Amino acid sequence: MKTVIVAALLAILVRAAALAQPGQPPADAKPASSNVPGVPFPGIDSERRAYFRILAPEAKNVSVGLPGGRAATKGADGVWTVTSDPLAPGFHYYSITVDGATVSDPASESYFGTGRMSSGIEVPSPGEDFYLPKDVPHGDIRAHYYFARSTGKIRRCFVYTPPGYDTNLPARYPVLYLQHGMGEDARGWPTQGRVGFILDNLIATGKARPMIVVMADGDITPGAMSGPGRGGGPMFWDKFTQVLIEDIIPMIDATYRTIPDREDRALAGLSLGGTQTMEITQAHLDDFAYIGIFSAPFGFPQIPEGFHGLLGDPAAFARQVKVLFISLGTAEGGMTASGRNFHLALEKAGIKHVYYESQGTAHEWQTWRRSLYHFAPLLFQATQDSNP
Amino acid sequence: MKTVIVAALLAILVRAAALAQPGQPPADAKPASSNVPGVPFPGIDSERRAYFRILAPEAKNVSVGLPGGRAATKGADGVWTVTSDPLAPGFHYYSITVDGATVSDPASESYFGTGRMSSGIEVPSPGEDFYLPKDVPHGDIRAHYYFARSTGKIRRCFVYTPPGYDTNLPARYPVLYLQHGMGEDARGWPTQGRVGFILDNLIATGKARPMIVVMADGDITPGAMSGPGRGGGPMFWDKFTQVLIEDIIPMIDATYRTIPDREDRALAGLSLGGTQTMEITQAHLDDFAYIGIFSAPFGFPQIPEGFHGLLGDPAAFARQVKVLFISLGTAEGGMTASGRNFHLALEKAGIKHVYYESQGTAHEWQTWRRSLYHFAPLLFQATQDSNP
Repeated sequence: MKTVIVAALLAILVRAAALAQPGQPPADAKPASSNVPGVPFPGIDSERRAYFRILAPEAKNVSVGLPGGRAATKGADGVWTVTSDPLAPGFHYYSITVDGATVSDPASESYFGTGRMSSGIEVPSPGEDFYLPKDVPHGDIRAHYYFARSTGKIRRCFVYTPPGYDTNLPARYPVLYLQHGMGEDARGWPTQGRVGFILDNLIATGKARPMIVVMADGDITPGAMSGPGRGGGPMFWDKFTQVLIEDIIPMIDATYRTIPDREDRALAGLSLGGTQTMEITQAHLDDFAYIGIFSAPFGFPQIPEGFHGLLGDPAAFARQVKVLFISLGTAEGGMTASGRNFHLALEKAGIKHVYYESQGTAHEWQTWRRSLYHFAPLLFQATQDSNP
Repeated sequence: MKTVIVAALLAILVRAAALAQPGQPPADAKPASSNVPGVPFPGIDSERRAYFRILAPEAKNVSVGLPGGRAATKGADGVWTVTSDPLAPGFHYYSITVDGATVSDPASESYFGTGRMSSGIEVPSPGEDFYLPKDVPHGDIRAHYYFARSTGKIRRCFVYTPPGYDTNLPARYPVLYLQHGMGEDARGWPTQGRVGFILDNLIATGKARPMIVVMADGDITPGAMSGPGRGGGPMFWDKFTQVLIEDIIPMIDATYRTIPDREDRALAGLSLGGTQTMEITQAHLDDFAYIGIFSAPFGFPQIPEGFHGLLGDPAAFARQVKVLFISLGTAEGGMTASGRNFHLALEKAGIKHVYYESQGTAHEWQTWRRSLYHFAPLLFQATQDSNP
């Protein structure tokens, strides 16, 4: 008991000392796990404040582009100090602006997001470890190159093969196709999204079936969008639909040990990838029986017109679509409202679906990691008994 | 003929126009392939000059950290312009310095090098395409996580499995363990080094045997080096030797379809990874029959004392070591001289080896890409007939 009191007093003193020196991280601050090896800053304390240090001796103005960032102050050593407000748990992009130049922090790992190589900070989430690496069997995340006839170019995708894939050679697996959002690319899910660890952990505890996950470029980065495909039709990613249906799926089925039918194939996506998922599954419902829509920004199908009128026939829809999963973060503002309204309309119309809200998270990766964690266990259960 | 002359005149006029406006790229300049999608700068012209654009309206001083960089000049629009001297072909790290802050360029892909997330620029090499993606069968580069008992931690390595690995299920493959240099990590070879494309192209043309390539963290990043392992013995990467021998090799042999014997196992490395290769193969010659040392910075084994005296018995050495490969770039200064001297000493002592010099390249990735391109075809030829 005495020890506890002493520890509590000590914690208060440490905190007071930290407050007494603005910008000085308290003793409980640790380097962010998103830092490059051996680099102490940015650091994060137990209240999820982030501490940045930027050496810029000649600069007049330095700031960190991050929600809740404060003005940087310059020390005598030319090091600028920024302390953030407490941050939401999970992954946040950030940038540094030095005298008007918005650049990336070489102390942080870089992530392709917001259309550029951005810095990022991983903020721990106490009690939430479903996306952390654990000592369980791990699948592989493969960078796979293929020639797409529909574009005449070599493209890259990422393929998660589950634990046991390389040793249990007779086994075949269902496939989840999982799309990123605007300004990101196929690297988003395996890197920021932690697909490997989420699936490894779900599979190790028997909560999800071993599955293959394919993550392809959705051609919705700003660069891709400014290309000739834009504005040419109702979707500016027309070409991606063709690449997915005509190139990627046949290539995956020919290269990996998949179960190549619609009952063992899912399509899901986040943000604009969720919008793509809706458009592609409505046009190609013969290819997918599972649908996941995470934080879709541009509305939802009409009821009863959507899915070629299938939303007007709940029984027929439920026979065709084994799982329709809609998710949102509660801090997504208008998008949260739009998703809730669609969920309520589905409910009112008696259309079978699963609705999930990520508490306290915005239009960001923690929402989508949690969405995947709740979506993946629902997948491919209809065919569970018929496959190894 | 007329067309040719007009085109030539036009080219001269374009060049003249470019010269008339310092910093303006000529018409033949193209975005670097290392840029993020859709970003025009940095650009590279046909003389391999690089053109940078940095928006920094309030800055007093901007420069680009790159060999042959010139002073940046500020335009009325707040955009700073830098034009480099002609660059050597291949990959170069670069950074941007804005008023004393050395940062990364969000317009460039980021690469872990020099101990941080650095920007990089890929300069084309006319007539040299062995490391470019082609429409040939592609292997996969897998990010593989494993628990290392010798460190008690989960670690990541990258594993190249060759084309056909996933469909030709009875086949087993020899393994090349390939190490990065100081300030880099396991990402160096698959990303900057283009291992996948180099092997894909060599295998497609029958120049190299299909093989597995394993690329692991060598624990020689600055962060790792400042840890408790440093200075504890003759090597500050003691732990890596143990991880490789006791954890990685058994894990790879248990996970992938390898041929698990020394005649089908190679170890190679670049720079400090070359030094590690020498130390590890001398201590564990029962595990490796092929040795590749690319641009080793800290000297070479003594003759005849090296390899436990085996360098004093050329016939015995040649029986044990199927290939000893030494390589250097001709522009590596003292390191070039050191490698040449070792080559000459080996030759004088009658010790079988292969020596390769990369013309005109320094201590950089183009030297090591070429080294791999010349090394890989020599591998596992002694056992070629006995395996599928």
